[in-house]
Amino acid sequence: MGVSAEEISQHNDRQSCWVIVRGNVFDVTEFLPEHPGGEKIILKYAGRDATAAFDPVHPPDTLDKYLDKSKHLGPVADMAAVIAADENRKKTPEEEAEAAEDLRLAEARGNMPPIDSCYNLLDFEAVARRVMKRGAWAYYSSAADDEISYRENRAAFQRVWFRPRILIDVERVDLSTRMLGARVAAPFYVTATALGKLGHPDGETCLTKAAARHQVVQMIPTLASCSFDEIMDAAKGPGNPYQWLQLYVNKDREITRKIIQHAEARGCRALFITVDAPQLGRREKDMRAKAAALGNGGSSVQTAEGLRSDTSQGAARAISSFIDPSLCWDDLPWFRSVTRLPIVLKGVQRVEDVVRAAETGLVDGVVLSNHGGRQLDFARSSLEVLAETMPVLRARGLDRRIEVYVDGGLRRATDILKALCLGAKGVGIGRPFLYAMSAYGVDGVDRAMALLKDELEMDMRLLGARTMDDLGPELVDTRSLGSHPNGVPDDHLAQNVYDPLQTPRQRDAKL
Amino acid sequence: MGVSAEEISQHNDRQSCWVIVRGNVFDVTEFLPEHPGGEKIILKYAGRDATAAFDPVHPPDTLDKYLDKSKHLGPVADMAAVIAADENRKKTPEEEAEAAEDLRLAEARGNMPPIDSCYNLLDFEAVARRVMKRGAWAYYSSAADDEISYRENRAAFQRVWFRPRILIDVERVDLSTRMLGARVAAPFYVTATALGKLGHPDGETCLTKAAARHQVVQMIPTLASCSFDEIMDAAKGPGNPYQWLQLYVNKDREITRKIIQHAEARGCRALFITVDAPQLGRREKDMRAKAAALGNGGSSVQTAEGLRSDTSQGAARAISSFIDPSLCWDDLPWFRSVTRLPIVLKGVQRVEDVVRAAETGLVDGVVLSNHGGRQLDFARSSLEVLAETMPVLRARGLDRRIEVYVDGGLRRATDILKALCLGAKGVGIGRPFLYAMSAYGVDGVDRAMALLKDELEMDMRLLGARTMDDLGPELVDTRSLGSHPNGVPDDHLAQNVYDPLQTPRQRDAKL
Amino acid sequence: MGVSAEEISQHNDRQSCWVIVRGNVFDVTEFLPEHPGGEKIILKYAGRDATAAFDPVHPPDTLDKYLDKSKHLGPVADMAAVIAADENRKKTPEEEAEAAEDLRLAEARGNMPPIDSCYNLLDFEAVARRVMKRGAWAYYSSAADDEISYRENRAAFQRVWFRPRILIDVERVDLSTRMLGARVAAPFYVTATALGKLGHPDGETCLTKAAARHQVVQMIPTLASCSFDEIMDAAKGPGNPYQWLQLYVNKDREITRKIIQHAEARGCRALFITVDAPQLGRREKDMRAKAAALGNGGSSVQTAEGLRSDTSQGAARAISSFIDPSLCWDDLPWFRSVTRLPIVLKGVQRVEDVVRAAETGLVDGVVLSNHGGRQLDFARSSLEVLAETMPVLRARGLDRRIEVYVDGGLRRATDILKALCLGAKGVGIGRPFLYAMSAYGVDGVDRAMALLKDELEMDMRLLGARTMDDLGPELVDTRSLGSHPNGVPDDHLAQNVYDPLQTPRQRDAKL
Amino acid sequence: MGVSAEEISQHNDRQSCWVIVRGNVFDVTEFLPEHPGGEKIILKYAGRDATAAFDPVHPPDTLDKYLDKSKHLGPVADMAAVIAADENRKKTPEEEAEAAEDLRLAEARGNMPPIDSCYNLLDFEAVARRVMKRGAWAYYSSAADDEISYRENRAAFQRVWFRPRILIDVERVDLSTRMLGARVAAPFYVTATALGKLGHPDGETCLTKAAARHQVVQMIPTLASCSFDEIMDAAKGPGNPYQWLQLYVNKDREITRKIIQHAEARGCRALFITVDAPQLGRREKDMRAKAAALGNGGSSVQTAEGLRSDTSQGAARAISSFIDPSLCWDDLPWFRSVTRLPIVLKGVQRVEDVVRAAETGLVDGVVLSNHGGRQLDFARSSLEVLAETMPVLRARGLDRRIEVYVDGGLRRATDILKALCLGAKGVGIGRPFLYAMSAYGVDGVDRAMALLKDELEMDMRLLGARTMDDLGPELVDTRSLGSHPNGVPDDHLAQNVYDPLQTPRQRDAKL
Repeated sequence: MGVSAEEISQHNDRQSCWVIVRGNVFDVTEFLPEHPGGEKIILKYAGRDATAAFDPVHPPDTLDKYLDKSKHLGPVADMAAVIAADENRKKTPEEEAEAAEDLRLAEARGNMPPIDSCYNLLDFEAVARRVMKRGAWAYYSSAADDEISYRENRAAFQRVWFRPRILIDVERVDLSTRMLGARVAAPFYVTATALGKLGHPDGETCLTKAAARHQVVQMIPTLASCSFDEIMDAAKGPGNPYQWLQLYVNKDREITRKIIQHAEARGCRALFITVDAPQLGRREKDMRAKAAALGNGGSSVQTAEGLRSDTSQGAARAISSFIDPSLCWDDLPWFRSVTRLPIVLKGVQRVEDVVRAAETGLVDGVVLSNHGGRQLDFARSSLEVLAETMPVLRARGLDRRIEVYVDGGLRRATDILKALCLGAKGVGIGRPFLYAMSAYGVDGVDRAMALLKDELEMDMRLLGARTMDDLGPELVDTRSLGSHPNGVPDDHLAQNVYDPLQTPRQRDAKL
Repeated sequence: MGVSAEEISQHNDRQSCWVIVRGNVFDVTEFLPEHPGGEKIILKYAGRDATAAFDPVHPPDTLDKYLDKSKHLGPVADMAAVIAADENRKKTPEEEAEAAEDLRLAEARGNMPPIDSCYNLLDFEAVARRVMKRGAWAYYSSAADDEISYRENRAAFQRVWFRPRILIDVERVDLSTRMLGARVAAPFYVTATALGKLGHPDGETCLTKAAARHQVVQMIPTLASCSFDEIMDAAKGPGNPYQWLQLYVNKDREITRKIIQHAEARGCRALFITVDAPQLGRREKDMRAKAAALGNGGSSVQTAEGLRSDTSQGAARAISSFIDPSLCWDDLPWFRSVTRLPIVLKGVQRVEDVVRAAETGLVDGVVLSNHGGRQLDFARSSLEVLAETMPVLRARGLDRRIEVYVDGGLRRATDILKALCLGAKGVGIGRPFLYAMSAYGVDGVDRAMALLKDELEMDMRLLGARTMDDLGPELVDTRSLGSHPNGVPDDHLAQNVYDPLQTPRQRDAKL
Repeated sequence: MGVSAEEISQHNDRQSCWVIVRGNVFDVTEFLPEHPGGEKIILKYAGRDATAAFDPVHPPDTLDKYLDKSKHLGPVADMAAVIAADENRKKTPEEEAEAAEDLRLAEARGNMPPIDSCYNLLDFEAVARRVMKRGAWAYYSSAADDEISYRENRAAFQRVWFRPRILIDVERVDLSTRMLGARVAAPFYVTATALGKLGHPDGETCLTKAAARHQVVQMIPTLASCSFDEIMDAAKGPGNPYQWLQLYVNKDREITRKIIQHAEARGCRALFITVDAPQLGRREKDMRAKAAALGNGGSSVQTAEGLRSDTSQGAARAISSFIDPSLCWDDLPWFRSVTRLPIVLKGVQRVEDVVRAAETGLVDGVVLSNHGGRQLDFARSSLEVLAETMPVLRARGLDRRIEVYVDGGLRRATDILKALCLGAKGVGIGRPFLYAMSAYGVDGVDRAMALLKDELEMDMRLLGARTMDDLGPELVDTRSLGSHPNGVPDDHLAQNVYDPLQTPRQRDAKL
Repeated sequence: MGVSAEEISQHNDRQSCWVIVRGNVFDVTEFLPEHPGGEKIILKYAGRDATAAFDPVHPPDTLDKYLDKSKHLGPVADMAAVIAADENRKKTPEEEAEAAEDLRLAEARGNMPPIDSCYNLLDFEAVARRVMKRGAWAYYSSAADDEISYRENRAAFQRVWFRPRILIDVERVDLSTRMLGARVAAPFYVTATALGKLGHPDGETCLTKAAARHQVVQMIPTLASCSFDEIMDAAKGPGNPYQWLQLYVNKDREITRKIIQHAEARGCRALFITVDAPQLGRREKDMRAKAAALGNGGSSVQTAEGLRSDTSQGAARAISSFIDPSLCWDDLPWFRSVTRLPIVLKGVQRVEDVVRAAETGLVDGVVLSNHGGRQLDFARSSLEVLAETMPVLRARGLDRRIEVYVDGGLRRATDILKALCLGAKGVGIGRPFLYAMSAYGVDGVDRAMALLKDELEMDMRLLGARTMDDLGPELVDTRSLGSHPNGVPDDHLAQNVYDPLQTPRQRDAKL
């Protein structure tokens, strides 16, 4: 028979809090204080259907894994009554704002530019920004503090210039390369990004399918919206090279061990341990969006005791409380002991740590990364760290012992080629594929990858390079890479009184 | 019985000028030419109640200290009559403008963003700008000449980048440090800023109370709106570490001696002598605001003989005529002789002077500072001077003999950490706390400090540092710090004719 | 009698496709798949008159050369009926947009600024932009990717400064110089640019005539709208020094051989082989314009298999499919064997390749060029490569063996003089003359050249140089030339809260 | 009796051209082709009163000097009739535009900000721009080509920073210094600028009188609107130190000799020979303004033969045709032979030429200058040349043999102090005084000088300098002076899609 709508609606506060997810009722009263995202967001749906809010930020197996079976109260008897009650309910101002946003987005979606009017990765971002929910956009696009590192990641590529070779026979160009021992069709991979269902109902599987079509690697995130197995299932098929696993290390190492060994068993081919996130960063756009959604009203005035209220967090911090800030070099042998997968440290940010990683003999690679500018603002771009790192590795003969990857800020094939010229084995691309997915689903990601490959092929020709082995530091000019003359103050008065030159104007013709 | 409203109103010009302050009448006729702020501002209130204009810019004990008792004419007999007369009086255009501003500000205050929508120190500034009187905003925000140094102070921090360590156990992070021998909870202090009541009726005590809650030091300004004793009284209580005294040196050294010895007796813990202000700077925003308030009409056209009229000064110069421009190195032994407090020189701006200060053996520290950009425009940022200074001090073994502090332009924990990495013992923060206070009072300052601490804790984790001792120059990249490519002229014609790339637009979809 | 309008109109699809060009009918059904610009653009005119679209992008002898005589169906019997049918036809949305654009341009043309209100080369660009068709503007103005190299070409000149000599007798200044052995009146030449009829119905002959008047060289492009012979015919006359031939090397070398030998026979004086375009670049403005013209509707969603649909190309790629990407150093002896003309490599981009070219002994010069920024984005400016190249050539004694030319970004005589000071023998100018032509025809190009000469004469006086031989590196300061601090991120929050200084305002006077 | 209005009005074309100036009639028919400003501007007034156009650009003794007495036809018989006829005449579109401008300016003048709302030199420029005629503004404010050097002049000062000394007794500060042997009250002088009556009816005498009041030097321009003697007469009086003469060297050396010897006889104290203007520069704003005034219609389309029509010139070229472009080093002994005045070369732009000048033993000083950016665009700033020059002079012991001055771009006392620290003996200021004069006449210039002195006194205190001798290179940081990273291309797409951070907004409070 199931639980009646009437009864569910009684359990609508902190004393007794039931919620509906996908037609089933759950008693989450005791779970409230443990919820990583804060109790406030759950209480918003107390006594009601929470599916729409739950789905994008939780893998489908979440309730099975984390809520005791005794709290699974069974199916709703009459969903129609639930829906009717919800429609008759007086909406809060936040809900009304949300409904207005939904209307606006529906119109924007109905009026989207055709997919083939996107000619580069930034075009997808422009479209996505117009069709994504404010909170989803804020979560994907936000970065730490003033977002200086976020933008520096892009800018750094623009401080490197090419020195192309001419008169090379470039009729045939080969984009394929090897990563961690296996061949892939192009030197980029889909790097791990969380909460894919915020952008598209199919979540990370959109990325999986497009990666398979293009024979490039996808790195599966710990904080995916889809479950790990859903993603691996989607990856099946001919031509798909393989998946990697990105790992946030849990304070409970047993959980971590299970995750690693399950991934290895399912055919994942490498383990990328995130080392730049002992604590997830403060991202103010994200925090501001979440505060707006929650009405921003209930939180008491902050005091010297702390800022740990819900509204100061945003989606990022909400989902990360399990991460172990004590993770350190001494933990590496344990990882080596629980898996035979290649181990790569993701988020290395200085040459000294790359050298140290290589000298341990325990890791197979590093990703130079500042986490898309989302962690420590003013962390340098991976490209700048790469240019600092490779000569040192070569001088010490360590460049053959580990593979070096970079991510952050790549939007053009020229960016990829600059990183490869400077010694990277491959590059990770994150947000651009999320935006392509959010706007156009799997077809968007597919087209984004096709555009990148098309640019790569042309740019290699124009650079005079036939294969990845032809790329080297002699093809780039990096003299300005380390130059950051940020924040030059304007001379307002002088600019104010300056009378700029003008071109001839048509109204002059009318005199 | 007191003095009648009728009689007071007769004394309304330069021949005989009475004013009411807090219900008492004062004859200031003879004092007019001595008033540091000029006679014009007093004459504006001749024969009337001057309390609202008097209070923000004078400590409450001012009239007792500086006006002969014979001029204290006693209480007003009938304040109601004074108020009624004032209401009926025809207003000048400036007063009408002021009344209109008051209305606008009252509406802005009624419509303020909630305090917890401020996520960083700049947010408070944005709110404060909307709710502060024009003159108060101008006094706080103004700086010298073209305000290049003011903005460079902020920009300099953005030219320093991090080289974070990974895989450090940062579960526990300790923000505390020692300053001039005592422990404080965080490496920042509230630096001295004048005229706190311009921003909030409670003035500097707002800063005092928040500093006590957060266990950080407050430096008490010579030019406070509150009296020194009011501030020290507000500072009492458990947990409050201590106060420092900022000193403008008076031409009359006896006055200075008394101030120092009184501060020492009341428990102040260090003496910061300002050495960058033999004359207070020209701040044009401030001058313009004051001129507007005074109607800007009566001053005769300036001649070659000088510019010393009231309207050319602004609040800053008005309050500073007592400062001794002859203060020099030879005066240091005298300071050493009148107090046992640690002595710190505030406003040092070149390495040669830091070395000289250390070699005198008379001082315990220096503050590298350009006075918030309010004195000499194009004085360099304290961060740049710090990077120049510390290697020299270390080379000469002087880095243990004095402590080096910096202030100016700090808005983020990353700024603080950069200064500490480069060798600062602590950093002073001024305007941001004034803005937080002006917008939200003591709660604003409290939240601002809590936000800073929250950022500090996170950023230390992300930098791989557990304590202040873990911070060092190897964690920063300062190569661009000395680079100031100011004022590159635009290529107007070429920019004018350039047709920028565009992303796909929704209206394209309608074609 | 000719073919009837009625019959032609039946052949209006892929099964049977006839088109009218200049009053004659052609059966292009079998040619459709071979058309370099894609079949879509032809099918748009199937069964109709295609002259207006055909003319600007094909030399007049195209159909004779490339379409079998059997497909030439003879003259149209009744053009009036064709025209009437076309007028009655329901227009597609794209055609309506085109008609609206035509109206707008006609009005703009009727209201043009007088030619003598153009004082410099950028002024012509401003006028041209307003009177050119969108597609033509897009083709001329577009460049690769983000158009960074395109703009860098101009910016690089602005990073070089003069060190003028004084007190030199500059009453007489001589602008003439020698290029590849012959004297010309000025150190600039008209470089090769494709599709001149997009800008003006007379196409490249406008450039030819103006160059003749000014006694400067024109380089004839392979992809001209006018036929090679038309241009050579227009060049005849006294005073005209000579023409050069720009060559895209065809996969079929026999075609290339014929082109070269015909040019030599007609009196062309040098052969410039383009070496920076094994594949023509992606130019998104151009692609977007072409997609808009084609309605952007029919192309299927892109897949992993590729992006080779029509709309992804633009005019540039459409016309270039014959270019041989396998052209390499080994081909040089063959060129040397088929002609006695001087051979110059156009598009060299690094000093190593200049040295290699000189050491072959087979070439007489190089053009340092990045193809107007239209090929590989982030290719460096020719000026920067020049500054790198000349000292190396001089050190190896190769500077007398080859002549070095540059092009890209020159708009002012100062630009020309900078290049000459740094060792260039002459400079090529492309787009500015196209814009002058598009706005004002041959008179525009004439005035543009006159302006350049006027600037040159004056600037040589001011620089203290009487002849080209007086120009040398001691007259320029190139220290900043290699500096590209691109993309400094703004500090948005701080800028947002900053209250800029203001000058006195008139409304202040009203207070 | 005089000439009748009726008769004058008959002589209104090229065949017979009479004009009225200050009530007298002149026959300028034969003079038309010789007029340096072109015949067109005269023909505009043929048969009419030309006084208003004549006066600002010609000294009053011009007609006496340059027009044969036989062409002086005597006084107008009936000026009232002339005026009446002029009022009844149908106005040309240009005259109507001029009349509309006059109305607009009269209103702006009636509504000017009070003089004491100008707090710095840039403020005068802001006011002047609103109250000056378009043509006058264009003449004063224009500069060469893209006006890059013009703006670089200002920007260069902003790349030099201070290293102030502290704890110096600066109670007394002395601004006086010696220039070419005599004492002046401040280290700046009024440099020569042409056509003062364009800005104010009293012309250069405004500058003379203010300079006398402030005891600073004025340099008298060759191209003054006032006659030389008028200026010297205005200079008389106690306290006025002296005048200098700026000289454009005439092709007819006898004229030049007379000018020099007359100046020496009248008490001028030095001769500044302009060496950076063998030809006056192209200033497009000025050209555009003149073309607009002349209706821009009559000039035929330009051809390859040249651009020498009136409208291509502007005021600058019109007045300069007498300047001798053959002036060279060999001429210096002649100058030395005709005067005992100190000789200074004005417009030196490279260290080699400063050294050469010093080694001749014939000159007493140089002015490093690029003529206010009005001659060769991309000439470097005088400050940059100064920093290059002084170390070389000192190394060769030449710094005592000549005095080095700079001009261009100075707007603040900090600019002056930077130049003095780097070794300049004094600085010339031009446009700022012209703007102060144009807005407020002699009182404006007076206030501008008073403001500069006030800033100087304060800034010397803050810099820790009591006298000019205390200023030296150790007080400045010039590391960025030579850095000109001009024209960095924007990354439009990425900026377009970036979503900037926002501060809390008041409307958030309403949610």
